[in-house]
Amino acid sequence: MRIALDAMGGDFGPAVMVEGAVETVNESEDIDITLVGDEPSIKKELEGKRYPSGRLQIKHASQIVGMNEPALIALRKKKDSSIKRAVELVKDGEVDAVVTAGHSGVAMAVSLVLLRASKGVDRPAIATIMPTLRRPFVLLDAGANVDCTAENLLQFALMGDAYCKAMFGNPDPRIALLSIGEEDTKGNSMTREAFKLIKDAGVGFIGNIEGKDIFAGIADVVVCDGFVGNIVLKTSEGLADVIIKMLKREISNVATGRIGYLLMKPALRNFKKKTDYAEYGGAPLLGINGTCIISHGRSSAKAIRNAVKVAAEFSLKKVYEAIAEEIKTVTSVKSTRETTIREQA
Amino acid sequence: MRIALDAMGGDFGPAVMVEGAVETVNESEDIDITLVGDEPSIKKELEGKRYPSGRLQIKHASQIVGMNEPALIALRKKKDSSIKRAVELVKDGEVDAVVTAGHSGVAMAVSLVLLRASKGVDRPAIATIMPTLRRPFVLLDAGANVDCTAENLLQFALMGDAYCKAMFGNPDPRIALLSIGEEDTKGNSMTREAFKLIKDAGVGFIGNIEGKDIFAGIADVVVCDGFVGNIVLKTSEGLADVIIKMLKREISNVATGRIGYLLMKPALRNFKKKTDYAEYGGAPLLGINGTCIISHGRSSAKAIRNAVKVAAEFSLKKVYEAIAEEIKTVTSVKSTRETTIREQA
Repeated sequence: MRIALDAMGGDFGPAVMVEGAVETVNESEDIDITLVGDEPSIKKELEGKRYPSGRLQIKHASQIVGMNEPALIALRKKKDSSIKRAVELVKDGEVDAVVTAGHSGVAMAVSLVLLRASKGVDRPAIATIMPTLRRPFVLLDAGANVDCTAENLLQFALMGDAYCKAMFGNPDPRIALLSIGEEDTKGNSMTREAFKLIKDAGVGFIGNIEGKDIFAGIADVVVCDGFVGNIVLKTSEGLADVIIKMLKREISNVATGRIGYLLMKPALRNFKKKTDYAEYGGAPLLGINGTCIISHGRSSAKAIRNAVKVAAEFSLKKVYEAIAEEIKTVTSVKSTRETTIREQA
Repeated sequence: MRIALDAMGGDFGPAVMVEGAVETVNESEDIDITLVGDEPSIKKELEGKRYPSGRLQIKHASQIVGMNEPALIALRKKKDSSIKRAVELVKDGEVDAVVTAGHSGVAMAVSLVLLRASKGVDRPAIATIMPTLRRPFVLLDAGANVDCTAENLLQFALMGDAYCKAMFGNPDPRIALLSIGEEDTKGNSMTREAFKLIKDAGVGFIGNIEGKDIFAGIADVVVCDGFVGNIVLKTSEGLADVIIKMLKREISNVATGRIGYLLMKPALRNFKKKTDYAEYGGAPLLGINGTCIISHGRSSAKAIRNAVKVAAEFSLKKVYEAIAEEIKTVTSVKSTRETTIREQA
């Protein structure tokens, strides 16, 4: 198994990516890595590090896509970007999967152009894992598609269903639609329409879920458009940070608090571990013909190591093939049904 | 000052509403209350309670709108509902404001029909106060309008601006647009269009704000459509609950944690107080000709007491008049500008 790692992506540049790659090949015997990016910078970061040299290759790419560049312009103008070269390795069969902590919009656009969307998929989506009181759930789309239709949401539901089955071995994933009330009449015009489509899609649809309930662990997949998904994801990150900060401030205002805080530190550390995105590694792009894992821009070496493991598992379990299969089956059932209706008419 | 209180609204029925009303008239000399709803039920709840009787009146209404009824059907079929009768009292000038913990969609629809939207306002919005590390901010729309246009978002920005000025005496509110990136190119088609409109509206626009930054206290007003606003609000409530629960669980798993928890309890209590919606009381409906405060369905007597105070302050400070004035000014500037452009063409 060989994974291409975009060495130039992320907020901290090649240092963290190279560290993550070295840790991976030292730790996992069955994962080799190809670091894609500016060769001199990568070599400089590799200096003095110990690792089995044959298992860590470099593929040079002269350009970097910045986090704030418009995706379409980056795609058109930067023909030799690290993310593009990395995805090309997947396309050419030289690696099994790609991991990037770079611009998610560009990763999506490049993957779409080079690997293509699976048949029946109009829009690939980013599937992010979020922790809850019980087990984690998959939020999708977490930011790939800002303007969606009800049909897109239906496809996200199908992709999430197939993903949970193939990746986590969950035989009957509970699929929920993010909305502002439980009844099918609640929501905006897009979600009300999507409710009807998902209900008839043959997945384990548990109906609408409200924001207050997503962390209760009652759904395995929460479906929404990428604008809402990204806001939910970022709001949750921001709020968790703020709550911890506010608690610490209150604690330092109370005489006995400081001692209490010291005694609680192991508990706070466990809590942090359970809610740390680095533990989950990265979010796969669902609905393309290949394995592409997008990591948080602020990824640490540990987060990258976990993202590479997610990529290897996703590839090994043939998850994208399973998603393509589920979409194909539902689409063909639907078109058969439509043909029958037309014939009866 | 007299406030109408919808005695039948909220998850806990008249018991909590009557208790909140009694506490209010006992505590605040300048606020009288008219309880609107089923007279026998209200009288039963009042039995044995001490209060200055002249300051607490009852207005009978025979019907109740359930929390899950479609707003338009409730509006058409329940002519004698407590929320409708309460808003009528505002319309007829018998009270200065109305407070309800009932169905927010119905409260909005009834207010629109009876009190009318202010001139130039296409859609009234719910403005909710949310706590941050520094001072609270106003989130609007928090759920009144699920399908919006860029023009609606512009009006929310103007209403939020006028609200902060008139209600909180903030001379220069910082207005932000909720989106998925700071640059004006980030967002969905509606927010990208709204960005341009708000930038030219003459308010203190600080640009897009991401979910991760809303709790940092850098904006006074965060503008979004009601679907997104409701999801942000509910997700935050749900996450805060879950974080506290997860922390408690981690604490009980760690030997020293339990002692730590006891020592930290005052800090946790202060934290809870600062983030408790009951402290903020209720969310005003902005953009109608009158004062209507919508409280959380789970409101306690204390939350109702605070909501009544918010209603009194909103009415006293002539906030709805100030909002109408700001909308009128901007609208007339805009139409003058358009006329000039047409004349030049």
